[in-house]
Formats: sequence, C-alpha cells, structure tokens
Amino acid sequence: MIDIARDSALGTSGASALFQLLRDGQPRTRAELATLTGLARSTIALRVDSLMQLGLIRPVGEAISTGGRPSSRFALNPGARVVLGVDVGASHAKLAIADLAGTILAQHGEPLPVADGPEAVLSWVVDAGHDLLAGLGRDTADLISIGIGLPGPVEFKTGRPINPPIMPGWDRFDVPGWVQQHWPVPVLVDNDVNISAIGELATAWPDVEHLMFVKVATGIGAGVVSGGRLQRGAQGIAGDIGHVQIARGAGVPCHCGNRGCLEAMASGPAIARGLRDAGIDVQTGRDVVELVKHGNIDAVQAVRQAGRDIGEVLTACVSLINPSIIAIGGAMAQAGEHLIAGVREVVYARSMPLATEHLGIVQSRAGEDAAVLGASMLAIHHALSPASIDAMA
Amino acid sequence: MIDIARDSALGTSGASALFQLLRDGQPRTRAELATLTGLARSTIALRVDSLMQLGLIRPVGEAISTGGRPSSRFALNPGARVVLGVDVGASHAKLAIADLAGTILAQHGEPLPVADGPEAVLSWVVDAGHDLLAGLGRDTADLISIGIGLPGPVEFKTGRPINPPIMPGWDRFDVPGWVQQHWPVPVLVDNDVNISAIGELATAWPDVEHLMFVKVATGIGAGVVSGGRLQRGAQGIAGDIGHVQIARGAGVPCHCGNRGCLEAMASGPAIARGLRDAGIDVQTGRDVVELVKHGNIDAVQAVRQAGRDIGEVLTACVSLINPSIIAIGGAMAQAGEHLIAGVREVVYARSMPLATEHLGIVQSRAGEDAAVLGASMLAIHHALSPASIDAMA
Repeated sequence: MIDIARDSALGTSGASALFQLLRDGQPRTRAELATLTGLARSTIALRVDSLMQLGLIRPVGEAISTGGRPSSRFALNPGARVVLGVDVGASHAKLAIADLAGTILAQHGEPLPVADGPEAVLSWVVDAGHDLLAGLGRDTADLISIGIGLPGPVEFKTGRPINPPIMPGWDRFDVPGWVQQHWPVPVLVDNDVNISAIGELATAWPDVEHLMFVKVATGIGAGVVSGGRLQRGAQGIAGDIGHVQIARGAGVPCHCGNRGCLEAMASGPAIARGLRDAGIDVQTGRDVVELVKHGNIDAVQAVRQAGRDIGEVLTACVSLINPSIIAIGGAMAQAGEHLIAGVREVVYARSMPLATEHLGIVQSRAGEDAAVLGASMLAIHHALSPASIDAMA
Repeated sequence: MIDIARDSALGTSGASALFQLLRDGQPRTRAELATLTGLARSTIALRVDSLMQLGLIRPVGEAISTGGRPSSRFALNPGARVVLGVDVGASHAKLAIADLAGTILAQHGEPLPVADGPEAVLSWVVDAGHDLLAGLGRDTADLISIGIGLPGPVEFKTGRPINPPIMPGWDRFDVPGWVQQHWPVPVLVDNDVNISAIGELATAWPDVEHLMFVKVATGIGAGVVSGGRLQRGAQGIAGDIGHVQIARGAGVPCHCGNRGCLEAMASGPAIARGLRDAGIDVQTGRDVVELVKHGNIDAVQAVRQAGRDIGEVLTACVSLINPSIIAIGGAMAQAGEHLIAGVREVVYARSMPLATEHLGIVQSRAGEDAAVLGASMLAIHHALSPASIDAMA
C-alpha cells in the first residue's frame, strides 16, 4: 500500500494524493490512479481532465489493456508552470524559481534586513522575482503560486505574521494580499523554520516520518514533522524552542523579555557576544563561523558549548516526540561538526537508550537551500491541490 | 467539510473514516457516506454489506430520494458486539467491557503488581474478563476485540513490551499471542499513557487537535496528540518525559540509571520519599494524596513543588508542540488543584505569551477511567477497520 499520508507533510488534505502520485514522474493510467488513491474513478477522470487542460500533466505512451482500447498513461509535465519560493531571513533574503517537480531553475539572494518592513522587503521580492523570471525567459503568466518563509510566527491560514519579535511593521500585515496586487496567484506564507523542515524532508529524507529541523542563526527555532506531517500546533507556533530556559542561562536577559532563554545563550549573536566579552573582535554569528573555519580555539569552544546548550533543550524534545532525524541548519551550522558535536554530546548522554539507538543528529542536507526549497514545495503542493485546480480550470 | 482526519487519533489509516462517520449514531445513506469519505460508491457498497452481515450496522428509516426508489440509511448498532479494555498499572489493574459506541457497560479493578509477570497478570485479565462478560449476560462470542495498556514502552505493531523498566519478565513477551489462546480476537497493546490520551480526547475534547495527557503516578509520562493523531514517534516511545533532567534534580539517582530525572523528583514515590526524609510517615504516592486531602501543609507544599518540576519539563513541550490542552491525570492528580497549580505557575511564567494565551492546563476529565476508555476505543477502532471487517466477513 502506497503511503498517501506523505503528502500531508505540507499540511494539506489527503485529496492531493493524486498529484503526489504523479509528481514522481512515473506514468500511470486512470485505473491505476484510482486504485492507488482509493478515489472514485469518476473523481480521477475529472481531475485528470482538469490537469490536462491546464497542461500540468501530459499523456505518455499507452498501457497494455486486458481488452478493448488501450488506456492512456499520464505523468506530470514539470516545465508547464513555475513557482516562486522566497526565504526572508532576519538580515538576508533569497528567492528561487522552481519547476513543478521542485527542481530549482534559478535563484538569487542578497542582504536585506527584515526590519526594513513589509513593503520594502516585498517590493524587493517582486522586483527580484520578475528579474529571475525574465532571466529564464518565462512570463508572469507561467507563475502558478508563491511560497514565502518569514523569520517569525505566522498564522498560516491567513499568511499574516503574529507579534513577530524581530520584524517591526509586519505584525498582522496582509502578506498574501500585498503580493497578489502584483501577482494574482495563491501566496502561502509560513514560518521560515517550518518551510525549511519541509525542504529538508523533501530533499534528503523522503521516507522519514518523525524529523526535527533545527535552525541556529540569528534566532533558534525548529520545524517539527510527526507522523509524516508538519505540525504547526494549536496557535501555529510549534517548534518555537528558542525561548526555553536552560541551566547555564540563569539571569541572562533575552530580547523576548524573559531571562535565561536558549536563544540568549546559543544563537549566532549570543555566541559572538560571549566571544567579545572574552576580548575577541567579532560582530556577528557569521564572523564566529569564519573564526571557527580558521581554527580559532576560543570560537570552536564557544560553538561547541552552544551545541551543548541546544542539546539540553533537544533532550526534552527527543523524549517528547521521539524523532529519527534531527537536522541542524542555519548559518551557525556552517561551523562544521563543532556545533553538532556539542548537541550529540548532551543528547546522547541524557536521553533514554531506546530514544537514541536509531536517532541521527546530522547537519542539514538541504543546507542553505532548505528554506527556498521548502517554500517552493509549499507553493507547488498548494497549486496542484484539487481546490486550486478547480479554481484555475 | 467533515474532519475525517479525526479517526487517525487512534493511529489507523484514513480508510476507517467510514466507521467514524457511522459511530456518531446519525443515519446516513450510501451516497452520503461516499461523498463524506471521498471513497468510491462501489467501495462503500461493499463495506456497508459487510457491516450489515456482521450486524455491526443496521438500516434505520429511508431517505427521501430525488427519484427512483428510496435510499436506505444506516447507523451503528452499538450493542451488536462488545470490546474489552484493560489498564495494567504498576500496582493496580482495571478492566472494562464497552459497547461499540465506547460506552462502558461494566468495569472491575483491583490491586495487582505488574511485577508479578505477564502470565499472572494476563491470567487475571482473562478470569476477570470472563466474569464481567457473564455478569452482563454476554457470551465470549460477543467479544470483538481487546485493547490493553501497559505501564512501559510497547512496540505497538507487535504488542510486545520493549525493555520496560518496572515490568520484570515482560520484555518482548508476546502479549497478543498469549491472550489469543483464550480469546481468538484482535488484541491491541499500547503504552498506558498513550491509551489514556486517546480516552481523554474521546471523553472530553472531541474537537481538540493538539493535546498532551500527562500521567503523574508511580512514573511520569505523556501521551501526545498532534494534528488530531496520537503520535507514537519513531521507536514508539514519544511522550517518555519522565527521564528529562530538571534543575532541582542535580545528582539525585533515578532507577533508569541516570541522575536528576523528573521522575526521580516528582513522581508519587519521589514525593513520598521527600516527605519521609522530612520525618513524615508516608509510604506511597496515594498516602501523600490522603495527607493533602487532610490539609497537611508539608504534603501540599511537596505536591506543589512536584507540579513546578513537571512544569519545567512541560514548558519545553509547550514550546515544541504548542498544544491547546494539557490534561493532568494519574493517581497524583487526585491531590486536587495543588499539583496543577505548580504546573501552571511555571508554564505560564516561562512560556511565550502566544503559546499560553489559549492553553488550558486542566485536571483529566476522564480521570481514573481514561486508560480503560482509551483501551476500549483502540479496540473498537481496530475491530471496525476495513481490514478487520474483511477478515470477519
């Protein structure tokens, strides 16, 4: 039995199983699609017709039939349309154009403070998106949907940021509405760590059901996949582990207003601050990564300690959700194995043996592309859902 | 659109949506069932026929048709068969007979140490089960399936306990195989806290998608429902929060072999030990509850501190999975509001406002019945799944 629950990693309904089946590029008949999805033949026939009319799937060869005329096989036509995947970080933004199979065709990134506000950042997205499309010789009409990751809590249903701590001017801003003034297509907005988890899963762990993606950068957060689904939680803020208090943090003030938070001790800026206090000239997390790459022992030790701090919080996470993969990403993961070694040291020492026996704690395989990939996957998945196809047809 | 994901709280496939629809007792036609589940009409017709032949559903009245002959409506026949739900605790066991709607018809419990080993405990289950059935005037042939909760990690797929710390003789014991020598029906075995989460959800929170059930008794553990599904994790040990280290626990040895675990500080025996160290004559957690009920100030303070310790771990859980309900159950929850007050004190002080704005931290509503109810639900759900019905037909 094929695992049609997999599609719901993107948080949409099981009805998009049809598209998931076609997405692998393997041609299938209507009868095969009905059997594999459990949907009625009449439903499959309608969906196939809609997808054909939109050019999203195409007939490929014919199947040998047990009698009567041969049945047509269909497969995804990945180049038919494109999506835009956007990753807005605290101080840097990136966007990519991907085809319907999730292959990135072009991408571009540059420093851009999210604190410049939504209109400045989204204007850049629109301009850079047009440039990327033009560079590929594609038209705005080829764009089928847009996925955007933002560095703060987002109400997924409406695409509005909710009290984002490092995003002045963005609170409850109608991101989809603004972008749709320029591109009248579906716009999906989610937390950048959630979309990174989707990107990591799609890139490197297609068969994993329980995965945590942990981003360690200006902030610290996690995307949680349990039972093959991205879990957003009751308020959409599942994975917000940066403000869990840790033992070493006692009394240290955090920008959230609380004290002793993980983020105040182990984020890029926190590690840099610790090194400055020790008389070392660093400004940002990226400076720390450079020092580590040059073998600076103080920087190596500070990064390893940050890994231990993160491991302290992840130990509770491992006990609670029992993942099989923890993928560590974000700018600080570029410091090589030192950060992960600290995480492993604590998680393996403190967890129950059964929980860690088959647990992999690894550097993100999707790396710096995790977020734009995940944003693209979110956009593709939504665009090819039955409701969207019905709306287009 | 009806939420057919709800059925998967019990961890089975979406195909049992049909039964979930019928379980509410509302009569529906084949056409309505096809529309609501998205399953093919031919599939629905086959399932309805099988369920009718087994007497599990019955025709009730006729629907007004748009033409032609009237369509029959069907509803669950709750009294057709019964299930047995079993809750084996560390020192006490309980079992219940429930109908197919999950209504408990009879129950019985008595002190029984799980450390007596699987054959002694399961022999008691068989004897007491026969007595309960006889008392209801039901026959063994009426029993359609059995759900069993055990106080340790269980490999759900095989029903075997895996390295259970407080269950000598049970490691990898074939629980379903042994029980089936006496009752040849499906036997589902899971961790007692997981089944309690299912029972709590079914009893009191039918619309909640993100819930934690925390059992505080001889041990401490949690059942995690995320996205409407019980999450067992990669090794089936999700929710095993009793061995997360807490600040106050530094150095205190735990029976797991580690130090400073939550369970070594805040379980019933740990609270009793703390009070004995202060010169108060208590042996068990239940003694502590009695003292609290009599207003003993030392006992009240100890229970409240245990609540704070539990809150320390739950703060990380709240950040990670963002539940809307945390239900506290187990013997120590009988100490009234004192335990929960301690939990709330820490969780509300340390969590991000958005995570706690709509978070309820409450005493379990299913109470002492949570586990037998959940075991019954697990049994019902499995028995009425398409695969089981096909096997019976």
